[in-house]
Amino acid sequence: MENKVKRNLPDDLMTDMNLKPFESVVVGNPEVKRVAPKVQVTTGESKVVDSLEEVIKKTLKDGMTISFHHHFRNGDFAFNKVMDLIIKMGYQDLTLAPSSLTGVMNDKVIEAIKKGVITNITSSGMRGSLGDFVSHGGLENPVIFRSHGNRARSIEEGEIKIDVAFLGVPNSDPAGNANGQEGDAVFGSLGYALIDSQYANKVVLLTDNIVDYPNTPASIKQTQVDYVVKVDQIGDADKIGSGATRFTKDPKELKIAQTVNQVITNSPYYKQGFSFQTGSGGAALAVTRYLRESMLKDGITASFALGGITKPTTDLLEEGLVKKIMDVQDFDKGAAASMAKNKNQQEIDASWYADPHNKGAVVNNLDVAILSALQIDTDFNVNVMTGSDGVIRGAIGGHQDAAAAKMTIITAPLVRGRNATVVPAVETVVTPGDSIDVLVTERGIAINPRRKDLIDAFAKVPELNVVDIKELQKMAQEQVGVPKPLAYTDRTVALIQYRDGTIIDTIKQVKD
Amino acid sequence: MENKVKRNLPDDLMTDMNLKPFESVVVGNPEVKRVAPKVQVTTGESKVVDSLEEVIKKTLKDGMTISFHHHFRNGDFAFNKVMDLIIKMGYQDLTLAPSSLTGVMNDKVIEAIKKGVITNITSSGMRGSLGDFVSHGGLENPVIFRSHGNRARSIEEGEIKIDVAFLGVPNSDPAGNANGQEGDAVFGSLGYALIDSQYANKVVLLTDNIVDYPNTPASIKQTQVDYVVKVDQIGDADKIGSGATRFTKDPKELKIAQTVNQVITNSPYYKQGFSFQTGSGGAALAVTRYLRESMLKDGITASFALGGITKPTTDLLEEGLVKKIMDVQDFDKGAAASMAKNKNQQEIDASWYADPHNKGAVVNNLDVAILSALQIDTDFNVNVMTGSDGVIRGAIGGHQDAAAAKMTIITAPLVRGRNATVVPAVETVVTPGDSIDVLVTERGIAINPRRKDLIDAFAKVPELNVVDIKELQKMAQEQVGVPKPLAYTDRTVALIQYRDGTIIDTIKQVKD
Repeated sequence: MENKVKRNLPDDLMTDMNLKPFESVVVGNPEVKRVAPKVQVTTGESKVVDSLEEVIKKTLKDGMTISFHHHFRNGDFAFNKVMDLIIKMGYQDLTLAPSSLTGVMNDKVIEAIKKGVITNITSSGMRGSLGDFVSHGGLENPVIFRSHGNRARSIEEGEIKIDVAFLGVPNSDPAGNANGQEGDAVFGSLGYALIDSQYANKVVLLTDNIVDYPNTPASIKQTQVDYVVKVDQIGDADKIGSGATRFTKDPKELKIAQTVNQVITNSPYYKQGFSFQTGSGGAALAVTRYLRESMLKDGITASFALGGITKPTTDLLEEGLVKKIMDVQDFDKGAAASMAKNKNQQEIDASWYADPHNKGAVVNNLDVAILSALQIDTDFNVNVMTGSDGVIRGAIGGHQDAAAAKMTIITAPLVRGRNATVVPAVETVVTPGDSIDVLVTERGIAINPRRKDLIDAFAKVPELNVVDIKELQKMAQEQVGVPKPLAYTDRTVALIQYRDGTIIDTIKQVKD
Repeated sequence: MENKVKRNLPDDLMTDMNLKPFESVVVGNPEVKRVAPKVQVTTGESKVVDSLEEVIKKTLKDGMTISFHHHFRNGDFAFNKVMDLIIKMGYQDLTLAPSSLTGVMNDKVIEAIKKGVITNITSSGMRGSLGDFVSHGGLENPVIFRSHGNRARSIEEGEIKIDVAFLGVPNSDPAGNANGQEGDAVFGSLGYALIDSQYANKVVLLTDNIVDYPNTPASIKQTQVDYVVKVDQIGDADKIGSGATRFTKDPKELKIAQTVNQVITNSPYYKQGFSFQTGSGGAALAVTRYLRESMLKDGITASFALGGITKPTTDLLEEGLVKKIMDVQDFDKGAAASMAKNKNQQEIDASWYADPHNKGAVVNNLDVAILSALQIDTDFNVNVMTGSDGVIRGAIGGHQDAAAAKMTIITAPLVRGRNATVVPAVETVVTPGDSIDVLVTERGIAINPRRKDLIDAFAKVPELNVVDIKELQKMAQEQVGVPKPLAYTDRTVALIQYRDGTIIDTIKQVKD
């Protein structure tokens, strides 16, 4: 069958897995029924245990679904500690359902797949050796990629049923009250993990830092926690996020950032109390810097900044240019440290952030989102999942979710190395063009024809070089030529869900 | 049938309503399945509506269950506004399931019962004209009285299914983010209402104060709210709680308070990091004062204070004598105002406070609870629900819940007016004697024979006049004589649940 972004979906898989094809970015007003966990009652004064093995034995059975969070990013020690034991203990046929997978987890995941310990995976993304392994057919069942908002939705509606969540935290009291804000390995917001702690049948915390009861603020609450496992070290603080924020010096990125700022400040959304999500990465940080200058000059303050937060954004909060930060994760030490100090930096969970099946999530109130792309095509569809070689090397993250903003801007250089970024058709559709409004490249900006209001608004701005996206695609093609089509087998190695759970695209096994 | 506190329960009602008799204060380790609400999806940028009638029309049907909170206490304008319209609109056969009912609600509830609008009630308590009305057979179906922790449990396990929650708040943004801490009618913690906002199928906020988005801290979240109704005035700040705290000057109460302090400070629990719940009321406030003096003298600080919070307790927080306050409700303006200022005053919901079917609630970590009694009998069973005339005039509140503390102290004068407080058998068992440890009266203290450790500990304290509770009962009887037994009809007007949902006692219609 073909879906609304013209992707062919494998009929057998769609039927077997009871999946629906992507239809529309419009969520509408369905009534959804949520699910709830089972609770094993305890008076729970102290849940501290030394033996992780004992806890795994008590909670885990073959065939179950286990989850982790990725707030420690590449400083994570929790995942490998747990997975190593699970492999050694000989478990089989588990489904791995973390909020995402970071590079430090790759070796253990591959080992677990090879030994039959993990037979299913759902994640926001995967990179490096694991992406390569899966793209070459290493996992029998297709990976399901979900955005952060969609993962929250799937858990809340029972499509992902977590049996045991193993959650690393930089602190916990003996009863399981924990947050991400104090300790040796702080990461700030526990946003993604809060869904696991609320919906998993069993919740196991791992920490190197048992603090006095009652530990507040309790992002994770004692009412949700079954065991607190004391470990030697839960994470490497230096690898959680970049220590110091480095702005790009790449003239192309600076040009793009400057143009993004012009797009924002000339848009109808740029007024007292507007809101934005900039994300991380070189261009994004530079956008924040330019935006700050404009806001100071124009006397405009933002009602809130959203998303994965960086220090330049918490600096705006300190300065009063941003009134609130709605914080689902922190990308660097500065942002993480700020949360404990500034009560206007509100921790939000992934559902509040972006579950499309909500009574409104924060993304629905967002004015401007700035997002990146590995590829964008002439229908404005965006790929953030597969490289120009067709191999998995990315993550949906909050991409589909933040694109619910009133104006979604994609930033991308026209080409990267020998590969065009603006293409006739993306290898993998992750975020549908219907939710993308503006593309900013170093050679000009393109506006989605759907957005006649923005076309009119930006026509009045001489410094904005508005061109047709097909022109940008041609310019890119002129630079790097037409690539040979990639060679895939018929086998589906991954399914890309849209945020409502429908299938927007698939990823096929690459031919080598 | 007779239950474990020797109360005869009506077989027909027990069978018809599928109820179980009270067995034990030991909760054990059952596995319970929780429920979840239905969610009507909306992008929900603004949910503000002017017409309460319109909202009621859209959300309410005959036979549904509606809920309210009682955090505004006698300053509540929300309940009567809503109920008045519901009566006028001609709804029938509703179940009223508020966190509790305060005096200002009485007239409207009685009117609604008389007109068939309300046919079932569950509440923590009722007083004054409504208690009188129910005790005289005004409501056909028996009221079900539940403690705050039991109400949370019942909602979480689906025994109370709230169709529409009408929640008054002193502030909300247009999307429904709200707290109890800013505005004209602040009450501090939204503890009881948080359960409604999480589990009701439809959540309607009423407020006189629409603030900018995003409103933080968001005790109630936009993801939970369907409508925000703007009203002229949501509450009378002066009637929410007593403005200034007044200590008792009654020598009997002072004597009791002093003795309670001696009991605490001579108990094995009085050490660095202990915890306590004192509640409100004259003696309780005086206890806090004496306890403060002892803590200063002995160099002891508490890890936390729990419960309904008063200014003397938030003063201890400011002074550093208490490290954290776990706050499910605030009894006065000072405590309410403190929450916005002091991050160590942690808002907790009723489930975290006291749901017995949890992975541990805060009451399970509580060392000392000081509770009051209308009556206590020689088995240490406590009545906080019916007066000496058998008429409903009280509330369970957190009584059964806080009695989960390691040492539960009941304070009571031996007699009140012409009525004994210490009696051979209480009119109504609310909190079973098995969870009561010490009774403090102005004539001496009695220790539950179950607590041999406390008997030993207090035997070494000469200033504590330890007597058998039967002696105290005799002293009381000597003062006021033996009252005539009360006359009741056979009809059950109310059922008292223990916190696990079993039936601990019933209340019969009084004969006039």
